[in-house]
Amino acid sequence: MSEAHNKKAIVLLSGGLDSATVVAIAQSQGYTVYALSFDYGQVHKVELHAAARVAKAQQIEQHAVIKLDLAALAHSALTGSGVVPKHRTLEEIGEGVPVTYVPARNTVFLSLALAWAESLNATDIFIGVNALDYSGYPDCRPEFIHAFESMANLATKIGTDGNQIRIHTPLIAMTKGEIVRTGLALGVDYSITTTCYDATESGEACGSCDACLLRLKGFGENGIADPAPYRALTE
Amino acid sequence: MSEAHNKKAIVLLSGGLDSATVVAIAQSQGYTVYALSFDYGQVHKVELHAAARVAKAQQIEQHAVIKLDLAALAHSALTGSGVVPKHRTLEEIGEGVPVTYVPARNTVFLSLALAWAESLNATDIFIGVNALDYSGYPDCRPEFIHAFESMANLATKIGTDGNQIRIHTPLIAMTKGEIVRTGLALGVDYSITTTCYDATESGEACGSCDACLLRLKGFGENGIADPAPYRALTE
Repeated sequence: MSEAHNKKAIVLLSGGLDSATVVAIAQSQGYTVYALSFDYGQVHKVELHAAARVAKAQQIEQHAVIKLDLAALAHSALTGSGVVPKHRTLEEIGEGVPVTYVPARNTVFLSLALAWAESLNATDIFIGVNALDYSGYPDCRPEFIHAFESMANLATKIGTDGNQIRIHTPLIAMTKGEIVRTGLALGVDYSITTTCYDATESGEACGSCDACLLRLKGFGENGIADPAPYRALTE
Repeated sequence: MSEAHNKKAIVLLSGGLDSATVVAIAQSQGYTVYALSFDYGQVHKVELHAAARVAKAQQIEQHAVIKLDLAALAHSALTGSGVVPKHRTLEEIGEGVPVTYVPARNTVFLSLALAWAESLNATDIFIGVNALDYSGYPDCRPEFIHAFESMANLATKIGTDGNQIRIHTPLIAMTKGEIVRTGLALGVDYSITTTCYDATESGEACGSCDACLLRLKGFGENGIADPAPYRALTE
């Protein structure tokens, strides 16, 4: 912990439960956090508002939002060309590559984080990927993260100057319940986060998409109610 | 050549001599070319005009230009915060990491090419990196390319479905003279390409920056004049 004191870290921040927890973990390890969010044509702009709220509440050093025209290159339910699935079982959520998959998303996001890291002379990047709940996403697996890290160390001046670029994935092996428990212990205010794939403009979650079901399970495992707003579950 | 017939390839296209040659090489190998360019806050927008000319002249299948706010994250002479060096010797050009280095640039560009490749169900990406002239750029070295390729195959649905994503670097071991000779043999019209780091708005090259010096050397080695426009070399 002390060795990281005053060290800079880039944290990928979506404004959801996971990334808000990652910000708190990085800070608890002594890192000064530079948060990076993307406006990539996602249906739910509401998550960018959540990212801004989290950045403010958790007093991060700097919050950059990169506009990225990913929708021109990629098609998925998250960029407006598909339908968000609802009411799936937790088994269905874990199987196969979901329709909400955005091609090469974590590769693109980590690459831009790497560019910022090199600019800031930082060697540490945090991302809230989780290999349990999202086993269907190839770019959430530990082997992908390790391969990206190896590549990053060859790609950059800072990586080839004798430093070691590290991609930190503190949530990768946690259940959603463990993530919530960790964040609560670190004082994360989950009422301002938005996880839902299909939130209303004011940020009310649907309660039935994959992300909501996993999130609700996480709070359920801790025996407490999710403080974030949900719309009436009558749909 | 026949095995690649009608196969799709993404080609990173800057509008310079190298990438115009790469388009011709990919086409000569039977690939249908999808060209990808970036508007990343570079000083010389003129290269985007050159990319559009090359895309048209070489009759590529589709040309996408992605607007990318890289300048917000990275500082270099190519994104407006430095001075382009002039009149350096070829030895000076080859040494160290140049001021024109854009942090993680090829990582970011290849990542977006990968996103497009996965969307198009394509497995082949071409990039005109050269390890001889640009030895100072870590992301132009073969070991970086190999690491990116390994990562890409773990990052994507297409890469984990039994296909092999390949990053093609046909120029990586060529001298500039060999690149020019290859392109001329394939009918590339170099008069419409722009390589200069400091071109005028109408596309006239300066003749004295690193890129111009290397390019002029390439034509010189073939005993012919560069057909591209240069402004009066009296500065």
